[in-house]
Amino acid sequence: MKLDAEWVTGFVDGEGCFHVGINRHADMKCGYQVLPEFTVVQHERDVKLLHGLREFFRCGVVRTNHGDRWAYRVRGKKDLLENIVPFFVQHPLKSEKREDFEKFRSVLRLMEAGDHLTVEGVNNVQRIAARMNRGRSR
Amino acid sequence: MKLDAEWVTGFVDGEGCFHVGINRHADMKCGYQVLPEFTVVQHERDVKLLHGLREFFRCGVVRTNHGDRWAYRVRGKKDLLENIVPFFVQHPLKSEKREDFEKFRSVLRLMEAGDHLTVEGVNNVQRIAARMNRGRSR
Repeated sequence: MKLDAEWVTGFVDGEGCFHVGINRHADMKCGYQVLPEFTVVQHERDVKLLHGLREFFRCGVVRTNHGDRWAYRVRGKKDLLENIVPFFVQHPLKSEKREDFEKFRSVLRLMEAGDHLTVEGVNNVQRIAARMNRGRSR
Repeated sequence: MKLDAEWVTGFVDGEGCFHVGINRHADMKCGYQVLPEFTVVQHERDVKLLHGLREFFRCGVVRTNHGDRWAYRVRGKKDLLENIVPFFVQHPLKSEKREDFEKFRSVLRLMEAGDHLTVEGVNNVQRIAARMNRGRSR
Protein backbone atom coordinates (compact mmCIF):
# COMPACT_ATOMS: atom_id res chain seq x y z
CA MET A 1 0.00 0.00 0.00
CA LYS A 2 1.51 3.29 -1.16
CA LEU A 3 0.82 6.14 1.26
CA ASP A 4 1.01 9.87 0.63
CA ALA A 5 2.89 12.06 3.14
CA GLU A 6 -0.10 14.34 3.75
CA TRP A 7 -2.38 11.33 4.22
CA VAL A 8 0.06 9.96 6.81
CA THR A 9 0.06 13.31 8.66
CA GLY A 10 -3.75 13.42 8.70
CA PHE A 11 -4.04 9.81 9.84
CA VAL A 12 -1.47 10.30 12.61
CA ASP A 13 -3.25 13.53 13.68
CA GLY A 14 -6.23 11.26 14.27
CA GLU A 15 -4.77 7.95 15.36
CA GLY A 16 -1.10 8.36 16.30
CA CYS A 17 0.47 8.56 19.74
CA PHE A 18 3.84 9.87 20.90
CA HIS A 19 4.61 8.41 24.29
CA VAL A 20 7.59 8.35 26.64
CA GLY A 21 7.70 5.44 29.09
CA ILE A 22 9.98 5.45 32.13
CA ASN A 23 10.55 2.01 33.61
CA ARG A 24 12.55 0.81 36.60
CA HIS A 25 15.50 -1.10 35.21
CA ALA A 26 18.12 -2.64 37.53
CA ASP A 27 20.75 -2.83 34.77
CA MET A 28 20.76 0.94 34.17
CA LYS A 29 23.21 3.03 36.18
CA CYS A 30 20.49 5.49 37.22
CA GLY A 31 17.96 2.71 37.91
CA TYR A 32 15.56 3.79 35.14
CA GLN A 33 15.13 3.23 31.44
CA VAL A 34 13.58 5.89 29.19
CA LEU A 35 11.47 4.40 26.40
CA PRO A 36 10.17 6.79 23.75
CA GLU A 37 7.64 5.17 21.44
CA PHE A 38 5.57 6.20 18.43
CA THR A 39 2.46 4.05 17.93
CA VAL A 40 -0.62 3.83 15.77
CA VAL A 41 -3.30 1.36 16.88
CA GLN A 42 -6.05 -0.01 14.62
CA HIS A 43 -8.72 -2.68 14.61
CA GLU A 44 -7.44 -5.84 12.90
CA ARG A 45 -9.61 -5.13 9.83
CA ASP A 46 -7.26 -2.21 9.04
CA VAL A 47 -3.94 -3.92 9.81
CA LYS A 48 -2.96 -3.28 6.18
CA LEU A 49 -2.72 0.44 6.99
CA LEU A 50 -0.22 -0.35 9.76
CA HIS A 51 1.91 -2.37 7.34
CA GLY A 52 1.59 0.59 4.96
CA LEU A 53 2.99 2.89 7.65
CA ARG A 54 5.88 0.50 8.33
CA GLU A 55 6.77 0.52 4.63
CA PHE A 56 6.35 4.28 4.50
CA PHE A 57 8.67 4.98 7.45
CA ARG A 58 10.99 2.03 6.66
CA CYS A 59 11.20 1.10 10.33
CA GLY A 60 9.19 -0.25 13.26
CA VAL A 61 7.06 -3.35 13.72
CA VAL A 62 3.41 -4.37 13.41
CA ARG A 63 2.21 -6.54 16.32
CA THR A 64 -1.05 -7.53 18.02
CA ASN A 65 -1.99 -5.13 20.79
CA HIS A 66 -5.08 -5.94 22.90
CA GLY A 67 -7.83 -8.27 21.71
CA ASP A 68 -8.68 -7.52 18.08
CA ARG A 69 -6.45 -4.46 17.91
CA TRP A 70 -3.04 -4.21 16.26
CA ALA A 71 -0.26 -1.66 16.70
CA TYR A 72 2.43 -0.16 14.51
CA ARG A 73 5.24 0.68 16.90
CA VAL A 74 8.62 2.42 16.55
CA ARG A 75 10.84 2.26 19.63
CA GLY A 76 14.49 2.39 18.61
CA LYS A 77 16.18 5.74 19.31
CA LYS A 78 17.95 5.58 15.95
CA ASP A 79 14.74 4.93 13.96
CA LEU A 80 12.88 7.64 15.85
CA LEU A 81 15.66 10.20 15.34
CA GLU A 82 16.39 9.35 11.73
CA ASN A 83 12.95 8.49 10.32
CA ILE A 84 10.02 9.54 12.49
CA VAL A 85 11.17 12.91 13.87
CA PRO A 86 12.44 14.36 10.55
CA PHE A 87 9.17 13.39 8.84
CA PHE A 88 6.97 15.25 11.34
CA VAL A 89 9.34 18.22 11.33
CA GLN A 90 8.86 18.43 7.57
CA HIS A 91 5.12 17.61 7.71
CA PRO A 92 3.83 19.29 10.88
CA LEU A 93 0.82 17.80 12.61
CA LYS A 94 -2.20 20.09 12.62
CA SER A 95 -3.80 18.83 15.83
CA GLU A 96 -2.71 19.55 19.40
CA LYS A 97 -0.82 16.25 19.15
CA ARG A 98 1.89 18.43 17.69
CA GLU A 99 2.68 19.57 21.25
CA ASP A 100 3.22 15.93 22.23
CA PHE A 101 5.48 15.50 19.25
CA GLU A 102 7.56 18.55 20.27
CA LYS A 103 7.98 17.17 23.82
CA PHE A 104 8.79 13.73 22.40
CA ARG A 105 11.42 15.35 20.22
CA SER A 106 12.94 17.21 23.19
CA VAL A 107 13.20 13.92 25.12
CA LEU A 108 15.00 12.37 22.15
CA ARG A 109 17.39 15.34 22.11
CA LEU A 110 18.15 14.76 25.82
CA MET A 111 18.74 11.09 25.03
CA GLU A 112 21.08 11.97 22.19
CA ALA A 113 23.14 13.98 24.66
CA GLY A 114 23.13 11.01 27.07
CA ASP A 115 21.18 12.96 29.73
CA HIS A 116 18.72 10.11 30.25
CA LEU A 117 21.51 8.07 31.88
CA THR A 118 21.67 10.35 34.93
CA VAL A 119 19.15 10.70 37.76
CA GLU A 120 18.73 14.40 37.00
CA GLY A 121 18.18 13.64 33.31
CA VAL A 122 15.52 11.04 34.10
CA ASN A 123 13.79 13.59 36.34
CA ASN A 124 13.77 16.05 33.44
CA VAL A 125 12.30 13.42 31.14
CA GLN A 126 9.68 12.59 33.76
CA ARG A 127 8.61 16.23 33.99
CA ILE A 128 8.26 16.44 30.20
CA ALA A 129 6.48 13.07 29.88
CA ALA A 130 3.93 14.01 32.58
CA ARG A 131 2.72 16.90 30.40
CA MET A 132 2.19 14.75 27.31
CA ASN A 133 -1.05 13.16 26.09
CA ARG A 134 -3.67 13.09 28.86
CA GLY A 135 -1.42 15.24 31.03
CA ARG A 136 -1.20 17.88 28.30
CA SER A 137 -3.67 20.39 29.78
CA ARG A 138 -2.56 19.93 33.40
CA MET B 1 -6.70 26.78 8.71
CA LYS B 2 -5.85 25.61 5.20
CA LEU B 3 -6.20 21.83 4.81
CA ASP B 4 -4.72 19.59 2.14
CA ALA B 5 -7.00 17.04 0.40
CA GLU B 6 -4.75 14.08 1.29
CA TRP B 7 -4.53 15.25 4.91
CA VAL B 8 -8.35 15.40 5.01
CA THR B 9 -8.58 11.84 3.64
CA GLY B 10 -6.08 10.55 6.23
CA PHE B 11 -7.81 12.36 9.07
CA VAL B 12 -11.25 11.08 8.04
CA ASP B 13 -9.83 7.54 7.67
CA GLY B 14 -9.00 7.87 11.36
CA GLU B 15 -11.75 10.06 12.80
CA GLY B 16 -14.64 10.31 10.36
CA CYS B 17 -17.99 8.53 10.44
CA PHE B 18 -20.60 7.92 7.74
CA HIS B 19 -23.90 7.12 9.37
CA VAL B 20 -27.48 6.63 8.22
CA GLY B 21 -30.15 7.23 10.86
CA ILE B 22 -33.74 6.07 10.39
CA ASN B 23 -36.21 7.81 12.68
CA ARG B 24 -39.96 7.46 13.15
CA HIS B 25 -41.52 10.62 11.78
CA ALA B 26 -45.28 11.12 11.78
CA ASP B 27 -45.15 13.78 9.04
CA MET B 28 -43.57 11.43 6.50
CA LYS B 29 -45.90 9.44 4.23
CA CYS B 30 -44.09 6.17 5.00
CA GLY B 31 -43.78 6.96 8.72
CA TYR B 32 -39.98 7.15 8.72
CA GLN B 33 -37.31 9.69 7.96
CA VAL B 34 -33.91 8.67 6.54
CA LEU B 35 -31.07 10.84 7.89
CA PRO B 36 -27.64 10.33 6.33
CA GLU B 37 -24.91 12.14 8.21
CA PHE B 38 -21.17 12.62 7.88
CA THR B 39 -19.45 13.51 11.18
CA VAL B 40 -16.01 14.05 12.64
CA VAL B 41 -15.81 14.32 16.44
CA GLN B 42 -12.88 15.85 18.34
CA HIS B 43 -11.96 16.95 21.83
CA GLU B 44 -12.60 20.69 22.27
CA ARG B 45 -8.83 21.41 22.18
CA ASP B 46 -8.92 20.51 18.45
CA VAL B 47 -12.15 22.29 17.52
CA LYS B 48 -10.08 24.40 15.08
CA LEU B 49 -9.63 21.27 12.93
CA LEU B 50 -13.42 20.91 12.72
CA HIS B 51 -13.76 24.53 11.60
CA GLY B 52 -10.99 23.78 9.09
CA LEU B 53 -13.06 20.88 7.69
CA ARG B 54 -16.15 23.10 7.45
CA GLU B 55 -14.17 25.65 5.43
CA PHE B 56 -12.62 22.89 3.33
CA PHE B 57 -15.95 21.27 2.41
CA ARG B 58 -17.84 24.61 2.34
CA CYS B 59 -20.80 23.06 4.13
CA GLY B 60 -21.93 21.59 7.45
CA VAL B 61 -21.85 22.90 11.01
CA VAL B 62 -19.56 22.69 14.06
CA ARG B 63 -21.48 22.09 17.31
CA THR B 64 -20.84 20.72 20.81
CA ASN B 65 -21.40 16.98 21.00
CA HIS B 66 -21.08 15.30 24.43
CA GLY B 67 -19.20 16.88 27.33
CA ASP B 68 -15.89 18.31 26.11
CA ARG B 69 -16.29 16.91 22.59
CA TRP B 70 -17.29 18.80 19.47
CA ALA B 71 -18.61 17.55 16.14
CA TYR B 72 -18.37 18.65 12.54
CA ARG B 73 -21.61 17.47 10.96
CA VAL B 74 -23.03 17.47 7.41
CA ARG B 75 -26.64 16.36 7.12
CA GLY B 76 -28.27 18.04 4.16
CA LYS B 77 -28.80 15.71 1.16
CA LYS B 78 -27.68 18.47 -1.21
CA ASP B 79 -24.42 19.17 0.68
CA LEU B 80 -23.69 15.46 0.99
CA LEU B 81 -24.34 14.79 -2.71
CA GLU B 82 -22.58 17.87 -4.03
CA ASN B 83 -19.63 18.30 -1.66
CA ILE B 84 -18.90 15.29 0.53
CA VAL B 85 -19.54 12.36 -1.84
CA PRO B 86 -17.63 13.76 -4.84
CA PHE B 87 -14.62 14.50 -2.63
CA PHE B 88 -14.34 10.93 -1.32
CA VAL B 89 -14.94 9.52 -4.81
CA GLN B 90 -11.97 11.56 -6.00
CA HIS B 91 -9.87 10.89 -2.87
CA PRO B 92 -10.72 7.32 -1.83
CA LEU B 93 -10.42 6.39 1.82
CA LYS B 94 -7.73 3.79 2.49
CA SER B 95 -9.30 2.21 5.58
CA GLU B 96 -12.26 -0.16 5.70
CA LYS B 97 -14.34 2.96 6.35
CA ARG B 98 -14.42 3.13 2.59
CA GLU B 99 -17.05 0.35 2.67
CA ASP B 100 -19.21 2.52 4.91
CA PHE B 101 -18.76 5.38 2.50
CA GLU B 102 -19.87 3.19 -0.45
CA LYS B 103 -23.02 2.13 1.44
CA PHE B 104 -23.64 5.73 2.48
CA ARG B 105 -23.35 6.73 -1.16
CA SER B 106 -25.80 4.03 -2.25
CA VAL B 107 -28.34 5.29 0.33
CA LEU B 108 -27.95 8.81 -1.05
CA ARG B 109 -28.55 7.45 -4.56
CA LEU B 110 -31.79 5.79 -3.36
CA MET B 111 -32.77 9.10 -1.79
CA GLU B 112 -32.05 10.98 -5.02
CA ALA B 113 -34.48 8.62 -6.76
CA GLY B 114 -37.07 9.28 -4.01
CA ASP B 115 -37.01 5.61 -2.89
CA HIS B 116 -36.68 6.59 0.78
CA LEU B 117 -40.24 7.93 0.69
CA THR B 118 -41.75 4.45 0.30
CA VAL B 119 -41.96 1.66 2.89
CA GLU B 120 -40.00 -0.67 0.62
CA GLY B 121 -37.32 1.97 0.10
CA VAL B 122 -36.96 2.55 3.84
CA ASN B 123 -36.59 -1.23 4.30
CA ASN B 124 -33.80 -1.21 1.72
CA VAL B 125 -32.07 1.64 3.51
CA GLN B 126 -32.44 -0.19 6.82
CA ARG B 127 -30.76 -3.29 5.40
CA ILE B 128 -27.84 -1.22 4.10
CA ALA B 129 -27.52 0.86 7.28
CA ALA B 130 -27.44 -2.28 9.47
CA ARG B 131 -24.24 -3.38 7.71
CA MET B 132 -22.43 -0.08 8.24
CA ASN B 133 -19.95 0.82 11.01
CA ARG B 134 -20.19 -1.65 13.91
CA GLY B 135 -22.49 -3.87 11.85
CA ARG B 136 -19.91 -4.02 9.03
CA SER B 137 -18.53 -7.49 9.77
CA ARG B 138 -21.90 -9.04 10.65
